[in-house]
Amino acid sequence: MKLLRYGPVGRERPGLIDADGRIRDLSDYLADFAGASLGPASLARLSNLDPADLPLVEGQPRLGPCVGHVGKLICIGLNYSDHAAETGASVPSEPIVFLKATSAIVGPNDDLELPRGSTKTDWEVELGVVIGTPAKYVSEEDALDHVAGYCVVHDVSERAFQLERQGQWTKGKSCDTFGPIGPWLVTADEIADPQDLDLWLEVNGERRQTGSTRTMIFGVARLVSYLSQIMTLHPGDILSTGTPPGVGLGMTPPTFLQPGDVVRLGVEGLGVQCQTVIQG
Amino acid sequence: MKLLRYGPVGRERPGLIDADGRIRDLSDYLADFAGASLGPASLARLSNLDPADLPLVEGQPRLGPCVGHVGKLICIGLNYSDHAAETGASVPSEPIVFLKATSAIVGPNDDLELPRGSTKTDWEVELGVVIGTPAKYVSEEDALDHVAGYCVVHDVSERAFQLERQGQWTKGKSCDTFGPIGPWLVTADEIADPQDLDLWLEVNGERRQTGSTRTMIFGVARLVSYLSQIMTLHPGDILSTGTPPGVGLGMTPPTFLQPGDVVRLGVEGLGVQCQTVIQG
Repeated sequence: MKLLRYGPVGRERPGLIDADGRIRDLSDYLADFAGASLGPASLARLSNLDPADLPLVEGQPRLGPCVGHVGKLICIGLNYSDHAAETGASVPSEPIVFLKATSAIVGPNDDLELPRGSTKTDWEVELGVVIGTPAKYVSEEDALDHVAGYCVVHDVSERAFQLERQGQWTKGKSCDTFGPIGPWLVTADEIADPQDLDLWLEVNGERRQTGSTRTMIFGVARLVSYLSQIMTLHPGDILSTGTPPGVGLGMTPPTFLQPGDVVRLGVEGLGVQCQTVIQG
Repeated sequence: MKLLRYGPVGRERPGLIDADGRIRDLSDYLADFAGASLGPASLARLSNLDPADLPLVEGQPRLGPCVGHVGKLICIGLNYSDHAAETGASVPSEPIVFLKATSAIVGPNDDLELPRGSTKTDWEVELGVVIGTPAKYVSEEDALDHVAGYCVVHDVSERAFQLERQGQWTKGKSCDTFGPIGPWLVTADEIADPQDLDLWLEVNGERRQTGSTRTMIFGVARLVSYLSQIMTLHPGDILSTGTPPGVGLGMTPPTFLQPGDVVRLGVEGLGVQCQTVIQG
């Protein structure tokens, strides 16, 4: 299933995409895609519905983040060998983990706001992994059983805030609107192999990032298992698995987003995001 | 007011401490201390109640985290000049910011769980600042208007996970139970000066940390203003403002928590936490 949340900010309703690509409303069946409603019992119940029986949503409503009330948005740094190379970093021996503030999460096509003082806001298309059942001390073999599905994540990053203002990466990763997720939460049964998905990103129609999850250093199962040794992963948590080559920081000369720029990005099978850059 | 949440994990009810130190139930007046219920209108309404009219809570129930549904737990590193010195770090020119996973948050007296493989779990008593109204691009002068109140935060830290396993501090800060908050959310009107509070921490009855918020490098108003330039602070977000000297990492030889240890810590006017260390 391709699940989504549509409607005004903070008042999104759950829906799904039918065979014709139209939105069908799920409000009669669940309050939101969040927490326990991402578990196997809830998803199995939805998969037994006939989309043709669900109310058709007319028009083209705004899409919200495809998961509500995200508990934590855990990101992995330098997880593609070719991206590590372009940033001049060595390949890590363990996953590099950081958190993005959940207040950065927005819908897939919402405006991307440059924070005041920003001069180096950069793009990063990523594969997002949505947790469906609690995971603590799980093995790599069992890890994917805890995954509800996948989505596109844009890990927007202000490089000066991230790298030039002391300490940790948090400042450059957590600005408002720096975490578009969606358009859809695609349930795991529709993704044959999360390690064989193409990713891409364009700025103003020019291709900037082209990659495949085949070149991840630490794959999805390894990451879920690894993180679960450190902290419990809860339903509705999202893991963003790192970006392939082609970020602005790696260009010659380095190139960053400007107001008016349009960013389009997607992951194979997971849909497309499109953001317009505005000044905050 | 001294506000709190009491009851079993995940089913906490709101309450307050009356003049005799007893818990009075507030369930008839609000669902939880979370989000908008931390705003000025909600707190003003509560302050007009006569605690003697509220139901008395018998016995000694478990105390939960004093704030529910915390959106983000933002921590400041190396924010006391004397603590920076003991860790061998230089005094930062801007606040060092990191996030602790909100899944680490527990009640003030819940067990402190050493994650498997931990050998260097350390203590850090901190002053917590609870946001009451949204703050974005606020000045230092206006910053404290956005603060609902204060609480004790224990920023538990696994130093090997934090410093020896590649990359960011996240791994050492986000383990389950590594974020006790409470016992109380003390409303801002009861704290005459957040930059003049004593902090202390004991392990097995031996004093380890002794400090005062007077020696903070970046004070509360500066931190709220600074962070609000980067991301919106929302009601129910908590800012933990760094720890004074006396952490285990700074001892000779370095000393860390063991199963069975008992940690007691407090901040002047904000109450006391007490945790027993267990193996996870």
